[in-house]
Amino acid sequence: MDKGRLEAFSDGVIAIIITIMVLELKVPHGDSLASLKPLLPVFISYILSFIYIGVYWNNHHHTMQVVKTVNGAVLWANLHLLFWLSLVPFVTAWMGENNFTKWPTALYGMVLLMSAVAYAIWMVILIKHEGENSLLAEAVGGDFKGRISIVIYAIAIALAWVNPCISFTLYIVVAGIWFLPDRRIEKKIVKDEQQ
Amino acid sequence: MDKGRLEAFSDGVIAIIITIMVLELKVPHGDSLASLKPLLPVFISYILSFIYIGVYWNNHHHTMQVVKTVNGAVLWANLHLLFWLSLVPFVTAWMGENNFTKWPTALYGMVLLMSAVAYAIWMVILIKHEGENSLLAEAVGGDFKGRISIVIYAIAIALAWVNPCISFTLYIVVAGIWFLPDRRIEKKIVKDEQQ
Amino acid sequence: MDKGRLEAFSDGVIAIIITIMVLELKVPHGDSLASLKPLLPVFISYILSFIYIGVYWNNHHHTMQVVKTVNGAVLWANLHLLFWLSLVPFVTAWMGENNFTKWPTALYGMVLLMSAVAYAIWMVILIKHEGENSLLAEAVGGDFKGRISIVIYAIAIALAWVNPCISFTLYIVVAGIWFLPDRRIEKKIVKDEQQ
Amino acid sequence: MDKGRLEAFSDGVIAIIITIMVLELKVPHGDSLASLKPLLPVFISYILSFIYIGVYWNNHHHTMQVVKTVNGAVLWANLHLLFWLSLVPFVTAWMGENNFTKWPTALYGMVLLMSAVAYAIWMVILIKHEGENSLLAEAVGGDFKGRISIVIYAIAIALAWVNPCISFTLYIVVAGIWFLPDRRIEKKIVKDEQQ
Repeated sequence: MDKGRLEAFSDGVIAIIITIMVLELKVPHGDSLASLKPLLPVFISYILSFIYIGVYWNNHHHTMQVVKTVNGAVLWANLHLLFWLSLVPFVTAWMGENNFTKWPTALYGMVLLMSAVAYAIWMVILIKHEGENSLLAEAVGGDFKGRISIVIYAIAIALAWVNPCISFTLYIVVAGIWFLPDRRIEKKIVKDEQQ
Repeated sequence: MDKGRLEAFSDGVIAIIITIMVLELKVPHGDSLASLKPLLPVFISYILSFIYIGVYWNNHHHTMQVVKTVNGAVLWANLHLLFWLSLVPFVTAWMGENNFTKWPTALYGMVLLMSAVAYAIWMVILIKHEGENSLLAEAVGGDFKGRISIVIYAIAIALAWVNPCISFTLYIVVAGIWFLPDRRIEKKIVKDEQQ
Repeated sequence: MDKGRLEAFSDGVIAIIITIMVLELKVPHGDSLASLKPLLPVFISYILSFIYIGVYWNNHHHTMQVVKTVNGAVLWANLHLLFWLSLVPFVTAWMGENNFTKWPTALYGMVLLMSAVAYAIWMVILIKHEGENSLLAEAVGGDFKGRISIVIYAIAIALAWVNPCISFTLYIVVAGIWFLPDRRIEKKIVKDEQQ
Repeated sequence: MDKGRLEAFSDGVIAIIITIMVLELKVPHGDSLASLKPLLPVFISYILSFIYIGVYWNNHHHTMQVVKTVNGAVLWANLHLLFWLSLVPFVTAWMGENNFTKWPTALYGMVLLMSAVAYAIWMVILIKHEGENSLLAEAVGGDFKGRISIVIYAIAIALAWVNPCISFTLYIVVAGIWFLPDRRIEKKIVKDEQQ
């Protein structure tokens, strides 16, 4: 089955998710700089979520480059991923409007965690469809980044009840892992492991 | 006439429908887990509608794979289908916010019913355009799933005045019929009928 | 210049316009059939605007089929058309929420009128770009429908101060002119003119 | 790496940005012409922002025409540009609802400034990727328009504390610079410089 519409539909949904988040930046009633101040935590959340959705789009794009065809299971695994990503605007707004308190910060992490799990499931189904010797299977390899992200999310969620700031910092760390160019990080990790 | 833009436009509309539904998950004012509780029925409705819209996109995608060209009648039948699907976010929110009471649950079913009817009309017009001996006509066959769905929707709407829970369960059943892989279900149904 | 992205961008904007209109169908607080009643005029406006936006997408699609390339002027004339169409959700909601009173009904017509004018300008620029002997110039011909629509819109706007119901009926008439298959209408008009 | 999805995703995000701005035109409660009056500054802001987003889409479209492939850095520079553009609906609404007072008018300029900077960064990364002797590098040349825009934005932001009307006029001037056909302006500027 042709992969073109899977890409087009995913692009559409991800483009809408990344854009409607800005609707949660409610226009303040005052016209002073001070009236913008309560929006700061929402804005910070928006930046982080924008980067995360950008990372997912980037990875989706990279993955689909080496994929040749799709099947019904791939379409549903893709919709499952889009479902969790579609909750990002909601948890972003809840976390931002409550100034990074316990539950909202934990729930934000849970949606990130489920998105990462959904992405991993999608990859497994894609590799099953493409074959163990396909270009995709080689390119993904051990998927170190994906696994370490899930571990950090789990730690961050647990630590939200200790101090939500630590959780938020960990979310930034994971975004950084994905944002920075691949090779340097991977080489650095390899070096660290060799020591 | 080229089918490319029909696909692109439908992808766009369906992507927006599936994503704006999440805007009905209004961010609660509190930051406790309890403040999320009133959102639970809306969230459950959202999951069901997400699956339904996913099913329609999936079927649209499968159908257009075997279609070669489109004409004016196909474009309008497609817009008619998109019209009913565009009402899904409204009925989803109404049903969720009223915790699955009679009228909202019935109206949700009516929109599903009309969407199914619109899909059936679209298929008839497509087959008329493609020809009775086309790949599409063969692939669709008796369209057992489409017919049984319409019957179940009608029963579910009627039962909303008896007990809306039964209606909601029936909506889940129809989603399941479409979600599960084709062959197994169809074979099972054939077996059941032979007994 | 390639026409692909003009189509993709227009599809995107038109898909969003046609879908966000449904957000004006505010979910009522009650769960009875009576609580839906105040939404009826908004819903009727929504249906009419859905058909209008559908007509524009259909015509845009047909026109671009016979166009080979575009230039900067065509891109801007297209954005000008999209600008007026983007105001349709606003005037639809204003007209619906005020139950078809004078000013809202007149303004709705003004946006339709400006959209029709913008479409005509776009066509002139397209034909200038494609050449007077191009397939497009032949296909469009005298553009009888476009001209008569503009005349009817102007009459409907003027009559809004007499009786907005007449205006609304005229908007339905224009939608019907575009919705019905081309040939029959044109032949009928030709016949009428010969008498 | 294929450039197709970068175009599709950018088209999607820009289409959503240009369309959701209209949601800030809140439907008034009254049905008289007077009830529309408070919307006038929001509407004027909307027109200006529509033109700006249109200019960005136009330039993006032109630039990508001469680009052959993209890489990870280009994708992120593109997302960075889309981030600043995604804030345009927010600052448009804030400026319009506060009737062009100091801070909102200045912030509007800051978002335009950052968008222009993000566009310039994107161009630098694209040219680095395509090569100094590429068609793109030649086509862009000194990027006089881009530089003069940034200078005018900076002046406009500073003057917002003197008189926001001057700032707003300067934003219109920059839009005009981009909107008018390239050659005439550039020739005129060259002539002016020779004198």
